[in-house]
This record gives sequence, structure tokens and C-alpha cells, in this order.
Amino acid sequence: MAYDPSNIFARILRGEIPCHKVFEDEHTLAFMDIMPQSEGHTLVIPKTPGEDIFSIPPEALAATIRSTQRIAVAIQKAFSPAGVMVAQLNGAGAGQSVFHLHFHVIPRHHGVDLRMHAGPPADHARLAEHATRIRAALY
Amino acid sequence: MAYDPSNIFARILRGEIPCHKVFEDEHTLAFMDIMPQSEGHTLVIPKTPGEDIFSIPPEALAATIRSTQRIAVAIQKAFSPAGVMVAQLNGAGAGQSVFHLHFHVIPRHHGVDLRMHAGPPADHARLAEHATRIRAALY
Repeated sequence: MAYDPSNIFARILRGEIPCHKVFEDEHTLAFMDIMPQSEGHTLVIPKTPGEDIFSIPPEALAATIRSTQRIAVAIQKAFSPAGVMVAQLNGAGAGQSVFHLHFHVIPRHHGVDLRMHAGPPADHARLAEHATRIRAALY
Repeated sequence: MAYDPSNIFARILRGEIPCHKVFEDEHTLAFMDIMPQSEGHTLVIPKTPGEDIFSIPPEALAATIRSTQRIAVAIQKAFSPAGVMVAQLNGAGAGQSVFHLHFHVIPRHHGVDLRMHAGPPADHARLAEHATRIRAALY
């Protein structure tokens, strides 16, 4: 499947759609998932177009996992969750819904089940607050 | 928490415990999960000791995601699954059971639910066969 430049993350990268930005560097962007599976659920994407792990250039993938690590550490500091799940889905059959490679960084809280992926959108004021907390915890 | 060098993956790295090896390079090792969530479930670990994404050196993490990519591509070729899930769990609260950082590469097959994590061990002959298939598909 060819990369579709009209996917929502490509549009966020081009600034055509807003996001609750957490982190940005030359190669990557991190922002709040607007349909979070738990409080603090953040997405990390490469700026390089690539739909999945099969097609992304290795250098772009390395930059993305590096930013993912920074976000995971910041989420750990900001939310003190029981754990942090990192997940990256490839193919509709694996639950991928946006075809621009992305890592999910999902805090797990004791006694709180994960919400369904791609459930109802969260309140934007809360997302903005979470983004602020994670940004403040970035090293 | 300090890294415990007696964890099972450290013992596999030292050759004290056998594994169904899929791939090895200077920095990483990939082998079949003996309690697979689906057929072809493979683990990728750094040789550098580090229990999770919070503590692993970035260079070791980059090497590990690079090998994870190679394994994901090989699994896609070997099993033609509907999708491939990459997951990396940090902390018991996120389901981490071995405290040496690892990426799960899990093929998703249409109409087949994922088995529970850390369920009953698979038949070793089948694991050996799956390892052979993935090795044959490595680029």
C-alpha cells in the first residue's frame, strides 16, 4: 500500500490540523492521542512519511523510538503510573487505524482497565492539561 | 529497581538456558516466546543489561528497535499475517514479567484472538519450526 499523504498525522505534521503537542525535534513529533486509552496516552511519530514498521527507513524508526523513550520517562515522572505500555500496530488486522507509523505510549494505572482503542474523544481541556504535565517532566 | 542479572533473558544471553534463536547481531538477540500469544510470537532484546525503557541506554534501544524491524519484516514475509503488533511493557503494572527490556513482535491472524500473555508453553517442535521459517525470511 502506498503512503497516503492525506492521513491525519501527515496533516498534523503539516499544521493543517491542531494537536496537543508534547514534544518536537528535527525528526519526530509527540502529541496527545485524542481518543486516549488511559490518561496521558501519547503518540510519537516520525516526520518521515512511512506507513508502518515494514516501510519506515531505519534511521527514522531509531529517531522515533528515541523520542518514545523520552516521552515514556516523562510520563512515568508526570503520572507515576503502575507501568507504561509502548505499542506500535502494523496493518488494519493488527488494529492500525492511521497509516503513518506511530508509537503509542500508554500509562497503566492500577485497577483501571484500558479503554477501547479509538473510543470517544477526550475533553480537550484535559488533554491540554496532560500535555502540559508531560512537557514539564521532559528531560 | 536494580537490574537483576539472574533474570531469564540474561541467562539466555549467557547461554545458560536454551532458546529458539531467530536472529543475533552484536547488540541484540531475537528468539521465540515460549508462551506465544500467537504463532510466530518473537522477542527481541538488547545484549546491554537494562530492565525497561526508562533505564536502557538510547543506543541499545535504537539497536533493539532496528532488529525488531528486521524481525517484523521477516514475520510478515514468513506468516503473511493480517497485521503485526509490536509491544514493549514497562513495569509489573503494565504486564512486564521479565525485567530485561524486550520487544514483543506478535503476528495477528484474522479471526484468531490473541492468547493470554504468559499462558501455557508451546510445543518446542513447533517453536523450532517457526524460528526456522522466520530465519529463512530475514533479509
